[in-house]
Amino acid sequence: MERCRLVFSGSGGQGLITAAIILAEAAVIYEGLNAVQAQSYGAAARGGVTRSDIIIDDTEINFPKVTQPNILVCLTQEAYDQSFGIIRPGGLLLTDSALVRTKRKADARQRSLPLYRSVQEQIGKTIVLNICMLGALQALTQVVGLDSLLKVISSRVPSQFFELNKKALDLGVELAQNQW
Amino acid sequence: MERCRLVFSGSGGQGLITAAIILAEAAVIYEGLNAVQAQSYGAAARGGVTRSDIIIDDTEINFPKVTQPNILVCLTQEAYDQSFGIIRPGGLLLTDSALVRTKRKADARQRSLPLYRSVQEQIGKTIVLNICMLGALQALTQVVGLDSLLKVISSRVPSQFFELNKKALDLGVELAQNQW
Repeated sequence: MERCRLVFSGSGGQGLITAAIILAEAAVIYEGLNAVQAQSYGAAARGGVTRSDIIIDDTEINFPKVTQPNILVCLTQEAYDQSFGIIRPGGLLLTDSALVRTKRKADARQRSLPLYRSVQEQIGKTIVLNICMLGALQALTQVVGLDSLLKVISSRVPSQFFELNKKALDLGVELAQNQW
Repeated sequence: MERCRLVFSGSGGQGLITAAIILAEAAVIYEGLNAVQAQSYGAAARGGVTRSDIIIDDTEINFPKVTQPNILVCLTQEAYDQSFGIIRPGGLLLTDSALVRTKRKADARQRSLPLYRSVQEQIGKTIVLNICMLGALQALTQVVGLDSLLKVISSRVPSQFFELNKKALDLGVELAQNQW
């Protein structure tokens, strides 16, 4: 496989680190791949942009920091403004259409999906925005199987919240498929 | 401050990644420091040793992988056998006395605490072993304030589980202070 380098960026509390860990675990436990996953905290964690890096490959990986992701997710305008320039040419730049309104020119497939609004309207709990994002990402990239994500989610989430999370994941898939 | 390099190692399901994230957030949000935190998954995540690296400093940090930690925590024998050799000379090597029974010679302060047994006997829920470990680590190293850890825990844990986690944190502090 081609090495997959991902960066999730947004604001603290959006659950992007959790999403990164779920993705890494899905790749490793259920797809037999290797993954490294890292976050730096700094001024960012004190109110600004949060960023989590993931690398997935079928060979060994040493350096966990991603300089040029082929998949970049931005869930706030500030995260977008700060990160859009690092996308690898031809990569995928996924944003939320309500949270990132002003786009720049980038040598990438830019996909803007109404994740936040759909989660709010159809599920009513914006805490699962991160899981909805993972669903969309899965449908757009097939970086891991949907079933692998679901298995990790079911092992991490208290059972009474599993259906909520599954609904969010499926909603993300649906939003991506409708726009693709 | 001296740069603080930590490695938490053990088995999947012990909550070591969560512990690492709590520690990094405590350092950054409540202590005004910088932190990077990374984990590699591989064969490890398929049943063997889990490892999470944290670096805390008051200056900027680039490389998130720790080669020689000054603080190493091992919560399984396998993790210990695999990692004890990387401890920085003079560092602190914290283990659980029930989960790591066979020790090797290392140029480090080796502290073995009955974290697991105490959590089991006094709290009854071994799921908070990771939080108990953080309490012990805090008391042994003062790498962050106890209050900072508590604030992060309270922001991450559902309110009905806060007391359980606080009890585990305090238990860890107590165990460390009794042995120090």
